[in-house]
Amino acid sequence: MLSGARGANHQHILTVTLNAALDVTYQVPSLRLGHSHRPTATDMRAGGKGVNVARVLHALGHETMVTGLVGGETGNAIRADVLVSGLREALFDMAGPSRRTVTIVSDGAATAVNEPGPRVSISDWADFVGGYHALAARASVVVLSGSLPPGLPDDAYAQLIRATPTPVILDTSGPPLLAGVAARPSVVKPNAHELIEATGLDDPVAGARALLHRGAHAVVASLGPDGMIAVSHEGSWRVRVPEELRGNPTGAGDACVAALAAGRALEWPDRLAEAVAISAAAVPCPLAGDIDPDTYTRLRPAITVEALDARADR
Amino acid sequence: MLSGARGANHQHILTVTLNAALDVTYQVPSLRLGHSHRPTATDMRAGGKGVNVARVLHALGHETMVTGLVGGETGNAIRADVLVSGLREALFDMAGPSRRTVTIVSDGAATAVNEPGPRVSISDWADFVGGYHALAARASVVVLSGSLPPGLPDDAYAQLIRATPTPVILDTSGPPLLAGVAARPSVVKPNAHELIEATGLDDPVAGARALLHRGAHAVVASLGPDGMIAVSHEGSWRVRVPEELRGNPTGAGDACVAALAAGRALEWPDRLAEAVAISAAAVPCPLAGDIDPDTYTRLRPAITVEALDARADR
Repeated sequence: MLSGARGANHQHILTVTLNAALDVTYQVPSLRLGHSHRPTATDMRAGGKGVNVARVLHALGHETMVTGLVGGETGNAIRADVLVSGLREALFDMAGPSRRTVTIVSDGAATAVNEPGPRVSISDWADFVGGYHALAARASVVVLSGSLPPGLPDDAYAQLIRATPTPVILDTSGPPLLAGVAARPSVVKPNAHELIEATGLDDPVAGARALLHRGAHAVVASLGPDGMIAVSHEGSWRVRVPEELRGNPTGAGDACVAALAAGRALEWPDRLAEAVAISAAAVPCPLAGDIDPDTYTRLRPAITVEALDARADR
Repeated sequence: MLSGARGANHQHILTVTLNAALDVTYQVPSLRLGHSHRPTATDMRAGGKGVNVARVLHALGHETMVTGLVGGETGNAIRADVLVSGLREALFDMAGPSRRTVTIVSDGAATAVNEPGPRVSISDWADFVGGYHALAARASVVVLSGSLPPGLPDDAYAQLIRATPTPVILDTSGPPLLAGVAARPSVVKPNAHELIEATGLDDPVAGARALLHRGAHAVVASLGPDGMIAVSHEGSWRVRVPEELRGNPTGAGDACVAALAAGRALEWPDRLAEAVAISAAAVPCPLAGDIDPDTYTRLRPAITVEALDARADR
């Protein structure tokens, strides 16, 4: 158990995964383009970024609730695996079958094909929004994560944020990110690439400030091996990782979001240091949603948080 | 319709697929190792080599029956797609879920991960063998194609061949090929790689002769762009393709087997020329089991069949 990450308060955190997936991972000794391979191992688990966030929160000892949309046999498999993983779920049925993602892990590299997901109908979406209100009202924090499935409007997350009485952390990209920011979420967490794509600005601090001015209360940008920057109305910080980590970076962003949700009661510098340490602890784990406690324990004391020039944030 | 390929007799051909699969094909604009991709198209169809052979036979106008083992939701999807494809099926249920294969087609290259399939229990196998006798008795030719699923002994095909009153064409590799050859099938159809693997001989003619002496009545070896060689007790031939074809070679072997089954009443040189032409007609098609009639019509008259030195075959 990562004691520092539990924070002062035991919280109930709702994670929303509108484009939940059945994540299939094949281990292949040596992947060669244009060839056929027999996998040495096959793993299937419920995925989608919100589900991965809930896995990390569960590992950190927090109460979570997984919601979102699932359908078909793939949806049944997602639901079953969520429960087997010890997570609670309030997933809603949709007409179309949930998507799969296929990841081929070979020689330390993960090559993935992510299906877009089924088209969500207006009535599926209306049912979800109707049920979401009650779930959000019981949560202390809500996490909205991942891409939107086909059929939903770009402002689907914005609609949910406006309907949420508690703080919202939003982790998405492109038009849903820009539309969501305008609905004033507590935190948005783009990565470096998503920040450039959304703002057109190459400098992460300038990009984060642009999203702050568009409505977000705080912007935390994950920069991979360069750590993280955070820009908020209370101040701005840069957080550095003391060593470069090798492994699977896929789950690091989800672990970061989990830590930001779990650490809501902490002061910003501590909250960010936790987020970087827990994010780094995801990198050695081959499957998104897992974290390595030893990496957390080793890195946490060595993480430095440096205040950025405050004048530009006001 | 490929008129030449229909032969004199309208035949009822049974194809056996013990390791049937749900073949999932993703089209990806540019596949890069270590990256994530969004497919531009996703196709799902029933597969396994015997199913592909039946698709080609159906396209050639022959009556077919698809049998084998299927299970779970994947098995239901396989069964449904077999029927949607216009094929008749007498598939047997097994306890484990049928496997999937995942193929990523990008820049003309097909990169595949083929799940091994579930373990077949002794009682699933006994049920199949019991039902197989009646199906084989009603067929004019039986085609046994593909790998054996886990749990079946290497001599599973040999058991079926001994129980078959009609001619059998066997297309498999490794120990099941060697065990099957000893049960005296009418034709075995290894490719160049499978022939070397099974016999240890680099020369395809020498390898084919070795399998003939081990019990096969005829050995047809597909050599990709080098065409085909055939060795039998009635003579030996080399068949050449007049031009090099680009595309997907995956289905070419299955098309060759289909043509050999369909052309059983033909003299060997005609039967082989048909097999090479129909095999070549599969190469331009992105999905195994499809054939391109224009390619067949263009190539068929230009295919040459040359008798090999006969003395060594006796």
